[in-house]
Amino acid sequence: MSFLQQVAIEQRETEFEVQRTIVGRWSPRAMSGEPLADSDLMRLFEAARWAPSSGNTQPWRFVYARRGAPDWERFLGLLEEGNRVWASAAAVLIIVLSRTVREKDGSPSRTHAFDAGAAWENLALQGTAQGLVVHGMAGFDYDRARDVARVPAEYAVQAMIAVGNPGDPGDLPERLRKREAPSARRPVREIAFEGAFPG
Amino acid sequence: MSFLQQVAIEQRETEFEVQRTIVGRWSPRAMSGEPLADSDLMRLFEAARWAPSSGNTQPWRFVYARRGAPDWERFLGLLEEGNRVWASAAAVLIIVLSRTVREKDGSPSRTHAFDAGAAWENLALQGTAQGLVVHGMAGFDYDRARDVARVPAEYAVQAMIAVGNPGDPGDLPERLRKREAPSARRPVREIAFEGAFPG
Repeated sequence: MSFLQQVAIEQRETEFEVQRTIVGRWSPRAMSGEPLADSDLMRLFEAARWAPSSGNTQPWRFVYARRGAPDWERFLGLLEEGNRVWASAAAVLIIVLSRTVREKDGSPSRTHAFDAGAAWENLALQGTAQGLVVHGMAGFDYDRARDVARVPAEYAVQAMIAVGNPGDPGDLPERLRKREAPSARRPVREIAFEGAFPG
Repeated sequence: MSFLQQVAIEQRETEFEVQRTIVGRWSPRAMSGEPLADSDLMRLFEAARWAPSSGNTQPWRFVYARRGAPDWERFLGLLEEGNRVWASAAAVLIIVLSRTVREKDGSPSRTHAFDAGAAWENLALQGTAQGLVVHGMAGFDYDRARDVARVPAEYAVQAMIAVGNPGDPGDLPERLRKREAPSARRPVREIAFEGAFPG
């Protein structure tokens, strides 16, 4: 168990017994700015690739920039200010893409975003197990991300991810420091229904 | 480690070290038809609810039918014949939904399908860890699923899931028996790119 996982497992209340790696995943913001070894980064993509997808089409793709690399500033510049203030201490920024049409016949994929989400969760769980901060973001310029990552027309931009080594929450702006804790969830009875959606 | 997890871990080749629960998840079809205890089912939704989502909006919803319940035949009837032939031995069939607009202001959600996919992967990993078969499906009638599950207009249908206790692969039709093995994946270098999508 990493320190970050322990924090979440201690603070979150579960209704039913569930894997500790799942409850232990959350989205911290405090990162140290230290780099990530190449093999540690590749383990994240390794996890992502074993996700399930419709017909095993594997529509997920990841384009990333390492802190200090020539592309870093362009990736960081995609983020809304509220994300950039903390994500600037990440080791890697990742843009998540999904292939919107099937490779075998060009027909539209109904599940590309859903499948990419499954791969993203594998990546997040794996990174958390490695003791890393893994934080997904929708607060960025989706259109400019297409240009920056040179995304082909048949791919959609789904999300960005900040990955880094844990840092000192005391270094965060005060507003974010107060929010540096695992979030709660609505109860199971509000997300799972037998027979039909409640009317 | 469940038997199903062991099968996948032994057969799959990984390029980088990754959590065994992730590599151990696959999509078997052989199920026994035995029922699932309520608490075992609820653990799946418990896992799903801890997924990350944009602004912690938690857009995932699940509508399910248990084998033998009044709704069972209607859910089973949604599946394409190729899925119905094996999924009829499931203990539970689940329809996965996502809320397409935000609850706070009704604005469109950009990530509802992606976030629901993250919740689905948590559910799949949890069920696999419980020794269950958890198999996602896109081969069903999406439009009729809306009617069957009485899905409100602001929710999208994303997928169906068959969950059950492992069965004897020898009971599957021959065509499926040959496919009852963990699938492979494209290599990491084909899904993760530094700086920009390869031109």
